This record gives sequence, C-alpha cells and structure tokens, in this order.
Amino acid sequence: MASTYTAPVQALIDELGRLPGIGPKSAQRIAFHLLKLPTEDANRLAHAIREAKDKVRFCDRCFNVAEGPLCPICSDDRRDPTIICVVEESRDIVAIEKTGEFRGRYHVLLGVMNPLEGIGPEQLKVRELLLRLEPEGVEEIIVCTNPNTEGEVTAMYLARMLKPLGLKVTRIASGLPVGGDLEYADELTLGRALEGRRTIDA
Amino acid sequence: MASTYTAPVQALIDELGRLPGIGPKSAQRIAFHLLKLPTEDANRLAHAIREAKDKVRFCDRCFNVAEGPLCPICSDDRRDPTIICVVEESRDIVAIEKTGEFRGRYHVLLGVMNPLEGIGPEQLKVRELLLRLEPEGVEEIIVCTNPNTEGEVTAMYLARMLKPLGLKVTRIASGLPVGGDLEYADELTLGRALEGRRTIDA
Repeated sequence: MASTYTAPVQALIDELGRLPGIGPKSAQRIAFHLLKLPTEDANRLAHAIREAKDKVRFCDRCFNVAEGPLCPICSDDRRDPTIICVVEESRDIVAIEKTGEFRGRYHVLLGVMNPLEGIGPEQLKVRELLLRLEPEGVEEIIVCTNPNTEGEVTAMYLARMLKPLGLKVTRIASGLPVGGDLEYADELTLGRALEGRRTIDA
Repeated sequence: MASTYTAPVQALIDELGRLPGIGPKSAQRIAFHLLKLPTEDANRLAHAIREAKDKVRFCDRCFNVAEGPLCPICSDDRRDPTIICVVEESRDIVAIEKTGEFRGRYHVLLGVMNPLEGIGPEQLKVRELLLRLEPEGVEEIIVCTNPNTEGEVTAMYLARMLKPLGLKVTRIASGLPVGGDLEYADELTLGRALEGRRTIDA
C-alpha cells in the first residue's frame, strides 16, 4: 500500500514513460517535477498537448504538419512542384527550409524503414508519394532521409522503385561537416566524403 | 513563415522543453511523437497531468504525495512517530518502503540544498521538520538525502541544527552496492566503505 504511488501519480508516470527517450527514472523525475509546479504551469503542458492535437493535422498532400488541409509549403504556388524532397519527419523540413537552398516541395514519410522493427514501406507514406508523381508532374526526387542505416535502406528502396518510372532520384551528400576537422572525422564519414568528391571550379 | 513551426506545435515543443532533462531536440522528438499518436493516446497524457494536479497534494505533515490531508504513512497509527527519515523527494520514500526495513515516519524536504543554485534551507521544508519534533516526540532523525555533494551538505546542515536539540541524528551508510565488485568501485565509494566498516558478528 504505502510502498507504491497513489493511482493518479502512477498514471502520470506511466503516461510519461510511454514517450520516446523517457525511461522509468526520467518519467518519475518529470512526474514529481510536475507535481511540485504551480498548477497553472503544469496545466499549460496539458493544454499545449490538447491544443496541438486539436489544431494540428498532417497536410493532405505531403504529410507536413499543417493547420488546414494543406501545409504552408503546399499552399505556396511559388514552390516548384516538379522537384520533391523526401524526408522522414516534419522537423526535417524546418531544417532544410532554414538553408534557403530548396524551392521545391516536400514529402514526409512519417518515419523510416526499419526491417528489425518491422517497419516497411507500407507503414510509411510511400504509396501517397507515388500518387503525387503523375498529377504534380514530378521530375526529380531528392531523398533526404538521415545518413544512417535506416535512412540509407529507405533511400535505396525509393531509388529502386522510382528510377524505373523515369524519375531522377538523388541523395543528399554525405561528407565532412562544414567547419569540421579531418582529424576527428570517423572513417565512414571520411570515406563518404572522398567518394563524393567534386571537381573544383577554379 | 514556412521555416518555423505553426504556433500550436511550437507551444508544445516549448512546454516539453521546460521539463527536467528534456533538451530542445528531445522536446521536438516528443512533440512530433505526440502529433503522430492517435488523439486519445496523446490526450491520455494531458488528462493524467490534470488528474494528478487535481487529485494529488502534499501531505500536511511530511510533504509526501497524498490524496487527502495526510499521506498513507502519516495516517497509519502503527508507524513509529519517534523516528523520522528525512528524504529529498517522495520517490525516495517508495524506494525505502520497498526495503521493508523502516517502520518510522518520513519528512520530505522537496529538494536538496544547493548553494550554487541559491537553494538554502528556507527553500526546503526544514522549518516544517522543526515544528514536528516536539508534538510528535521525535527522538531520532535518519538523514537519507542522496550520497552526493548536495545531499551531504544538506545532511551536515541538518545534523548541526538538530544535534544541539538533543536528537540522535544518523546518516544512511555509503559503501559498495550489494553484489558489486571492489575492482570497479570508485575511490570515493571504496573510501566510504572502508570508513564505515563494521564488526562482523561471528
């Protein structure tokens, strides 16, 4: 009896423990932090969750987060519809938009292929990508999944599926980060950097 | 415009980022996880927060989490009122109760002294501890704050304050964890273990 938490505390710990990257100890720590907070501060989080779930949806076309049927990028006529950048999550779009280098549209897979966890193309928004190709007149797909095993597997799969359809399929470059140091680069990254070398325009 | 999140998403990321141990990247990851969840699952967390804030309070006597004015331990007449175990947080009570070794009562400081962060005894429930000594006939205080710098500082402070009042003030033992390995113990722990050596009853 006294050796466990009261039901509402345990329920809170359980729910927090379901979040990604939150282990049982962190869930406990966060729960007690919330209990000690002034009620209005803790309820602000509860409110933010409900608000986000109420107001935010996924874009009908590209699965970016959106407040209406289409996200701001899909609603923007100035974006080039012939080139689609495929990303794992909406947050990747924010990162790419910050570069100011890309004027095409996006497609969010809402995840990445992971055979070990049983996540294949059918669990991702791959079919929805295929359905966009014809009506939007897509010519190039840039696969911007993360440069790790899952991201590479997904990129390979998409390339094999899309190339026979006559599309240009490209992959973002892997290499040394700008401002990085050769000495501290891992072999894999350095190998990729060499492999992806480009002629210097001089 | 397109390079930032819509307001409800940003609000959610901001609120999550205020939780202890959640950095900006984790906050983003958790926010998108919540957005992808079925609404009822995400709202269960929001509900758990509100429920906990509504139903859970701190015990009027010991500041353990409670659903009524007193926590289950303070309401239990079979607990020895003459010995109080002082802990930092309610979760420490759960850990100690699991041992089944302690039949006294508790006092939760709701934190620990941390001079660098400006947390002194007046930010903790120290005054409330003092007020319990006389009416409850307390004879011994076991200081069960964590065996780290802050916990030791707090233990030292409490000992210096309580001993002149004629109370027995003890500290939980530091030493090698049961099942641990001497070879892998750090010097500080090993030093404490030697310092705290006990006669073998043979």
